[in-house]
Amino acid sequence: MSTLEECKQIWRKADTVCFDVDSTLLKDEGLDELAEFCGVGAQVREWTNKAMGGSMRFRTALESRLQIIKPTHQQLTQFIMQHPIHFSEGVKDLVALLQSHGTKIYLVSGGFRTLIEPAAQLLNIPRENIFANRLKFFYNGEYAGFDTDQPTSDSGGKQLVAKQLKEHSSNLVFIGDGMTDMEACPPADCFIGYGGNVVREAVLKKAAWFVTDFKELISELQETS
Amino acid sequence: MSTLEECKQIWRKADTVCFDVDSTLLKDEGLDELAEFCGVGAQVREWTNKAMGGSMRFRTALESRLQIIKPTHQQLTQFIMQHPIHFSEGVKDLVALLQSHGTKIYLVSGGFRTLIEPAAQLLNIPRENIFANRLKFFYNGEYAGFDTDQPTSDSGGKQLVAKQLKEHSSNLVFIGDGMTDMEACPPADCFIGYGGNVVREAVLKKAAWFVTDFKELISELQETS
Ligand SMILES: [Mg+2]
Ligand SMILES: [Mg+2]
Repeated sequence: MSTLEECKQIWRKADTVCFDVDSTLLKDEGLDELAEFCGVGAQVREWTNKAMGGSMRFRTALESRLQIIKPTHQQLTQFIMQHPIHFSEGVKDLVALLQSHGTKIYLVSGGFRTLIEPAAQLLNIPRENIFANRLKFFYNGEYAGFDTDQPTSDSGGKQLVAKQLKEHSSNLVFIGDGMTDMEACPPADCFIGYGGNVVREAVLKKAAWFVTDFKELISELQETS
Repeated sequence: MSTLEECKQIWRKADTVCFDVDSTLLKDEGLDELAEFCGVGAQVREWTNKAMGGSMRFRTALESRLQIIKPTHQQLTQFIMQHPIHFSEGVKDLVALLQSHGTKIYLVSGGFRTLIEPAAQLLNIPRENIFANRLKFFYNGEYAGFDTDQPTSDSGGKQLVAKQLKEHSSNLVFIGDGMTDMEACPPADCFIGYGGNVVREAVLKKAAWFVTDFKELISELQETS
C-alpha cells in the first residue's frame, strides 16, 4: 500500500488511468436504474444491498439481478433513449485534461457496454478502451443472459483488466468508488477512492487517497504543469 | 423394432406426430442455406459432411459451424426475407389431413426456431409445438452463441423431446430423414424414414418403414377413414 504522497506522485505522472463507471464516471448505478425503468427497482436494490454487504460472488449477484430484470432488447433501447447521461461533477474536465496530456483512459465496469458506450463517445474515449459486460438477446429481443467471457463478469475482473493494462503502462491509476475498484491495485500502481456520489465506508477507511471532488485531482495535475 | 405392419397400424391411430424439419418438412438444410447466404457455404458443408459421417457430438458440430457463419441478427433477418420457404412435396396436404383428424403436430429440429417459425405459421402449427434451437445476439446484433438449454442443442435431443411428448401420447410417430430422428424411436412408438429430398443409407437400411413420398402416408390414413 502506497502512502498518500506516493499516490500523488504516481498520479502526476500517470500514463494510463482507469475509471470505474457506476457511481464514479457517472452518478448512477446503471443496473439499478434499468431495474427501476423495467418496474423491478425495489427487488433489484434488495439484491444489490445483499451483494455489497457480503462476500457474494460477483457473477452470482449479476445473474440474480438480471434474472429479475430480464431486460429485452427493446427495453434497453427505450431506456437508453429516455435516460439522460449524468456525468459526475467535474469528470468531463478531468478526462479532457488527461487527454490533453496524452494519458490513455479506460472505462472498466461490471456494468453493461451498451449503457456505457454513449458516455464514452461523448468523452472521446474509443470503444476499444471499454472493459464491460455484454448482454445477450434471442432473435425476438428476449433477454438471453450475458457474456461470461468478459473479465468484469466475475469477481476479480477489474484486477485482471488492470493486470493486462499494466503490461503497457508505467504508471497505472485506478479510480473508483467500490471495493472491487480498490482490488485492482496492485497490479495498478495507485488507487484513488472517489466518494462524490456515494461513500463506501470500507474504501474510505482503506484508500490511501480518497477524494469527493474530481477538482482535487485536476488541481494536483495543474500544480505540476 | 416394430415390423412394417406394426408401424402402419400405429400410424393409422397416431395421436401425436413429430416432423423433423431440415430435409423432411422442408426441402433444404437451413444451416447450409444460411451459410451459403453468408458467403461461407463451402466451409460449412465440409463440417456438415464430417459431422454426418462420424460420431461427432451434435453440439460440437453445431458450435463449429456457427463459429464459421457467425450470423448477425441483421443477416438472419435478410435471409428470412429473401429466402422462400420450400415445403417438401405433399407435406402441406399431409399436415392438413392430420390436423383435420385432431392429431397433434410437433416440429422437432436441431435447426433454428427463427428459421422454422414462418413455416410453422403457414401450416397453423402453434409456436409452442416447435422444439428447436435459439440463436443469441449481442445488443448490436453480433452473433453471441446459442441456447444450450434447448434439448435439441445436443446429441440425443430428439429422443429427449420424444420422451417428454410420449407422456401425453398413446401413439407417437416420428418422421425424419436422419439417424437422429430414428433415435427418437423408442420412446416414439413408430419411426417413418423419409427420403423425398435426400436418402441417408443408414436410415434406409434400418427403418422398418421408409417412404420417399408423403402421398404414401396420406393414402395409408385415407384407407382407414
Ligand atoms: Mg462503482
Ligand atoms: Mg433432417
